[in-house]
Amino acid sequence: MASTLKLVVFILLSLCTLSPVSSHRRHPLDSLTPAEFARVRAVVKKSYPSPKHNLTFQYVGLDEPDKPAIHSWLSNPSSKSPPRRASVITRLDRQTHEIIVDISTRSIVSDHVYKGHGYPMLTSDEQVAAYGLPKTYEPFIKSVKKRGLNLSDVVCSTYTVGWFGEVKSRRVLKLLCYYIDGTVNLYLRPLEGITLVVDLDEMNIVEYYDRFTVPVPKAEGTDYRASKQKPPFGPHLNGAAFIQPDGPGFKIDGQLSVNVTRLWAYWVFHLSFDVRAGPIISLASIYDLEKQEYRRVLYRGFISEEFVPYQDPTVEWYYRTFFDSGEFGFGQCAVSLKPLADCPANAVFLDAYYAGQDGTPVKTPNTFCIFENYAGNIMWRHTELGIPDEVIKEVRPDVSLVVRMVATVGNYDYILDWEFKPSGSIKFGVGLTGVLEVRGASYTHTDQIKEDAYGTLVAENTIGVYHDHFLTYYLDLDVDGEANSFVKNNLETIRVTDHSSPRKSYWTVVSETAKTEAEARVQLGLKQSELVVVNPNKKTKLGNPIGYRLIPGPATPTLLSYDDYPQLRGAFTENNVWVTPYNKSEKWAGGLYTDQSRGDDTLAVWSHRNRNIENKDIVLWYTVGFHHVPCQEDFPLMPTLSSGFEIRPTNFFESNPVLKAVHIGSTATAIAKDGFPKSGPPPSRYWHA
Amino acid sequence: MASTLKLVVFILLSLCTLSPVSSHRRHPLDSLTPAEFARVRAVVKKSYPSPKHNLTFQYVGLDEPDKPAIHSWLSNPSSKSPPRRASVITRLDRQTHEIIVDISTRSIVSDHVYKGHGYPMLTSDEQVAAYGLPKTYEPFIKSVKKRGLNLSDVVCSTYTVGWFGEVKSRRVLKLLCYYIDGTVNLYLRPLEGITLVVDLDEMNIVEYYDRFTVPVPKAEGTDYRASKQKPPFGPHLNGAAFIQPDGPGFKIDGQLSVNVTRLWAYWVFHLSFDVRAGPIISLASIYDLEKQEYRRVLYRGFISEEFVPYQDPTVEWYYRTFFDSGEFGFGQCAVSLKPLADCPANAVFLDAYYAGQDGTPVKTPNTFCIFENYAGNIMWRHTELGIPDEVIKEVRPDVSLVVRMVATVGNYDYILDWEFKPSGSIKFGVGLTGVLEVRGASYTHTDQIKEDAYGTLVAENTIGVYHDHFLTYYLDLDVDGEANSFVKNNLETIRVTDHSSPRKSYWTVVSETAKTEAEARVQLGLKQSELVVVNPNKKTKLGNPIGYRLIPGPATPTLLSYDDYPQLRGAFTENNVWVTPYNKSEKWAGGLYTDQSRGDDTLAVWSHRNRNIENKDIVLWYTVGFHHVPCQEDFPLMPTLSSGFEIRPTNFFESNPVLKAVHIGSTATAIAKDGFPKSGPPPSRYWHA
Repeated sequence: MASTLKLVVFILLSLCTLSPVSSHRRHPLDSLTPAEFARVRAVVKKSYPSPKHNLTFQYVGLDEPDKPAIHSWLSNPSSKSPPRRASVITRLDRQTHEIIVDISTRSIVSDHVYKGHGYPMLTSDEQVAAYGLPKTYEPFIKSVKKRGLNLSDVVCSTYTVGWFGEVKSRRVLKLLCYYIDGTVNLYLRPLEGITLVVDLDEMNIVEYYDRFTVPVPKAEGTDYRASKQKPPFGPHLNGAAFIQPDGPGFKIDGQLSVNVTRLWAYWVFHLSFDVRAGPIISLASIYDLEKQEYRRVLYRGFISEEFVPYQDPTVEWYYRTFFDSGEFGFGQCAVSLKPLADCPANAVFLDAYYAGQDGTPVKTPNTFCIFENYAGNIMWRHTELGIPDEVIKEVRPDVSLVVRMVATVGNYDYILDWEFKPSGSIKFGVGLTGVLEVRGASYTHTDQIKEDAYGTLVAENTIGVYHDHFLTYYLDLDVDGEANSFVKNNLETIRVTDHSSPRKSYWTVVSETAKTEAEARVQLGLKQSELVVVNPNKKTKLGNPIGYRLIPGPATPTLLSYDDYPQLRGAFTENNVWVTPYNKSEKWAGGLYTDQSRGDDTLAVWSHRNRNIENKDIVLWYTVGFHHVPCQEDFPLMPTLSSGFEIRPTNFFESNPVLKAVHIGSTATAIAKDGFPKSGPPPSRYWHA
Repeated sequence: MASTLKLVVFILLSLCTLSPVSSHRRHPLDSLTPAEFARVRAVVKKSYPSPKHNLTFQYVGLDEPDKPAIHSWLSNPSSKSPPRRASVITRLDRQTHEIIVDISTRSIVSDHVYKGHGYPMLTSDEQVAAYGLPKTYEPFIKSVKKRGLNLSDVVCSTYTVGWFGEVKSRRVLKLLCYYIDGTVNLYLRPLEGITLVVDLDEMNIVEYYDRFTVPVPKAEGTDYRASKQKPPFGPHLNGAAFIQPDGPGFKIDGQLSVNVTRLWAYWVFHLSFDVRAGPIISLASIYDLEKQEYRRVLYRGFISEEFVPYQDPTVEWYYRTFFDSGEFGFGQCAVSLKPLADCPANAVFLDAYYAGQDGTPVKTPNTFCIFENYAGNIMWRHTELGIPDEVIKEVRPDVSLVVRMVATVGNYDYILDWEFKPSGSIKFGVGLTGVLEVRGASYTHTDQIKEDAYGTLVAENTIGVYHDHFLTYYLDLDVDGEANSFVKNNLETIRVTDHSSPRKSYWTVVSETAKTEAEARVQLGLKQSELVVVNPNKKTKLGNPIGYRLIPGPATPTLLSYDDYPQLRGAFTENNVWVTPYNKSEKWAGGLYTDQSRGDDTLAVWSHRNRNIENKDIVLWYTVGFHHVPCQEDFPLMPTLSSGFEIRPTNFFESNPVLKAVHIGSTATAIAKDGFPKSGPPPSRYWHA
């Protein structure tokens, strides 16, 4: 559930301050600017003036130009940029409208009503409005009194209701309330048993339940603020500082167009912000030192959806099966990063904007941080002692460029890292922290628990409920070009039965190119395979297929039965890996309208069309999964639990691309010592068409 | 294969310099000192004087005192330290002797001849001696001439021969040779087709084969030294420095006894060095701030064995199924770490010593580095926007203490990290880099490859042969005490069929305590379970079992058939997880005598005794696996490929142990700002008995 309040910024044309920043060059994939949001608002409002119409902006984002337009713009920088268009989803007089606005001509290109299942993303504003309702709702006030609590210390939060086979549905959400007397950690003090249902179009309470009373967990020990901690404290740690005397080794071009050609890692990419997806990385190319050119890796990548099903089937909890991206928006839930804490001292911060419910731009300062990361790792090394009278020792410390955003979806904080490595790898990091979602209970000791509690007793009267996190990444890889194939290099055991070898067995690689979507569905752990996206039209000089391979994390499949309603909506978790042919409309793994969706517009549904994916522009979908069995260490706040995956060049380069890496990284001293010339790649371009 | 040359240091009593270092307190688990090695040598030589006897020291290490002796010493620091004893394995007049030496009394406690299968670890010295043999061996000289090569540019390396069902065996190894004309990267220029067999007791060549000739891969592009690189070079990266104005935040006590009580992370542990295992971490305890005491986590942990089977069954390659620890010794293969490159600027370095073949101590400077790691990660965070008119943002940057050693086993460099986190987690990192083991071949393009090449064409005439790496960790966990149990918390799907919920399914946790070794064998990926080592005799105040859980890496099972000879010897890879009752003699997963072992003394054999492991002092065995399909990026040197696993407290603490973590980490400035008192835990002790 989301509960975000943001400072509303009135139309301002000034760009957010950046250091270092060069003059802004507009890129067709740039996020909408505050001025553009304002213009979009004006255009739509003009067609649907209030008070005649009841209009809310549920989503406003860039209407991404088609790939050919982007490519022609890239191939000819002097050519005109494709028209700037906005994709707008509104609730208008109880209907959902899909509107395309041409920003330059200030006109509506298309406008039609969506009649299908599901509802658009919730706005922060309507959730905040909903919070306020219980305070003046008599039955609720009675319930609070009955429990001997002060209404003034009660806060509420919003929960999407899901879909469980209902034929008719309306745009509602549920409110659950908490007691903050003596703590700011509301989620750990639920008023269990009370549920309110709010109609969002009417903005009023339409159902109310006060089913039972259990003790509200005590405030003691729940507050996580440093100022509230009591002795004993830990010892003091010696100081530590990371400094870059000459500033960061990368360059940022434009408001949100990050261009890192000056990083010797050679990565160039475009970073933009979307209120739903959060960070979007586009046109990531790596500079090939030998070929003296940029080579494509990723056309566009972002987190498409996150599915968080809780595992308590009871009436108060069964519906808690959240889709954080489609229902609450990772971008809308982005929080301002704290310098020196969320990111190291050498980080550069970027602001972001989105359209509030009334269409006016909302600013989130420090939405992204970007920093060079020297984590003490070794890029490559070798010590050679096998040559008489000679000792050879060559070591290269590792460095990477990290793009970080944190989405706080109510109680949970998701640390989302994109790490670009000089070797050509991209590492995708997900960190889970924040506060558990707990159920109030009468238990004060596990001995009292006689039946399934659907969770762990993490504190007195507090059950940390079992749940999963499935984050599904959309990765439109264009490995050295658009037409790619998905290859499973299966490691197969060969038995030696003809005594041709003293061995009885060995394994070898049997390559299998997926011709259709069905052949590209992979559940990790069932088979030992290297999964590679290759460019079948190009080979290395030696004849190996040019590719990028997936290095997956642990296998954590969904444990829900496939016919269960939440699983139908989250069917994209049936496999860890899917491959689809590129289709502009297939962006959101749980469907465009995820709130109360019915599973008729998911990645699984698209994939079951079983289209041809060989030698096509394909999209790789990968799901990072966590099964979370809470423990007492997660109370009152969870130490970060991390996971992730990597894509890594495999016969993409003719040889080790970092063999000539400058021998630096650890210290400025070492850098000063290094005698390498300062020549670099040509002036930055995002992509070579 | 190993090929290590080390500076022989004559008996010196001075300790290696350390910064910071306090006065050395002898710990019963300290590695043997140079003086002790010298004394052990003198005692053994006295009994077996040369030239009457042909004596070589194959292994000399601490004969670890029994646990009760350690515990009584720890519980009473004023009590006398248990007697210092050395465990010695010698080759003596063609026999293997197992000798226990009492160092204080300068006497031999026991001495008996080992008659079983297999041979002791190879010494560096005998491998170096073997290298020299071909240069004066006429048939080899002819073979080199025949190929038109200069003998002076030929170097050879040693390969263990394995076991393939032979009834009789003798102590031999194979030599393969390489051409270094124009490069230092010998492994990439094999004289394929030539094999020499050396009898190590006789130190002469007993078999010779020159089966065929293929081109020696060219030197061009193989040299990895910075000084040999040619333009174009990458651009220059801006400087970066990590500084700790007041020095590191941990304290080192003794020569190799690392004591980190001053790290607020609270970890205290003992680090020692063994010529076979490399780093050994003992008595790791974490300080519980609430309980105001140290609590046990790990009694003793080290890498027990590494199995590296290559997947080419042909006559030149089938036998390459190495056991790097038991055959070559991770400690013997430890290389001197390079400041500012192998470890960051704030690292502290430690030397190590082992006994050379003649028993005299050999010093490896900078064997270990220890550093506080600020990798830009977040320990925990939360932003709270759900409370009207209040924004709460609390973030704690993460820091950890890393102990690093690099073992270079011939061509491969293994980066072995132990990372201790304030939250109580220990992360085990394995990084693979160095040079591939390649087969010379006639192929210059993949089009020419008509049958299975058992590898990837990574350069002209160069096949990177398929292989695995399996590193098996020995973890004698003593979670809050000695008697522990192994619990599988199985995540099981429950189907809802009685319409008691709108849901059709959910998952819950069904705990299963392994009563016997058989019940504790786990292959990852087959079932969703949390694997926990618990102390069944203690519970949290809430009644949860106190435990540490395993967070595994990707599932990479062995792909060899279980009846294959190499797999019998490496049978410990049949499962990713095993649990055994503690047994002092069960340390080496592949057996004590691994060279030419026959699989009669492996972890799998011990486990099949199916002993009771419930509420016992148990050992957890975990295997980190890699299937390596080489690619061109691995040529001429591999960018580091990393994997690992984590053990993490689970209901070990009553609540988040880092909730009060001082708000620092990123910079000295931030530290200065923090207002926390500097009180800390009591004077350091390694363990509480």
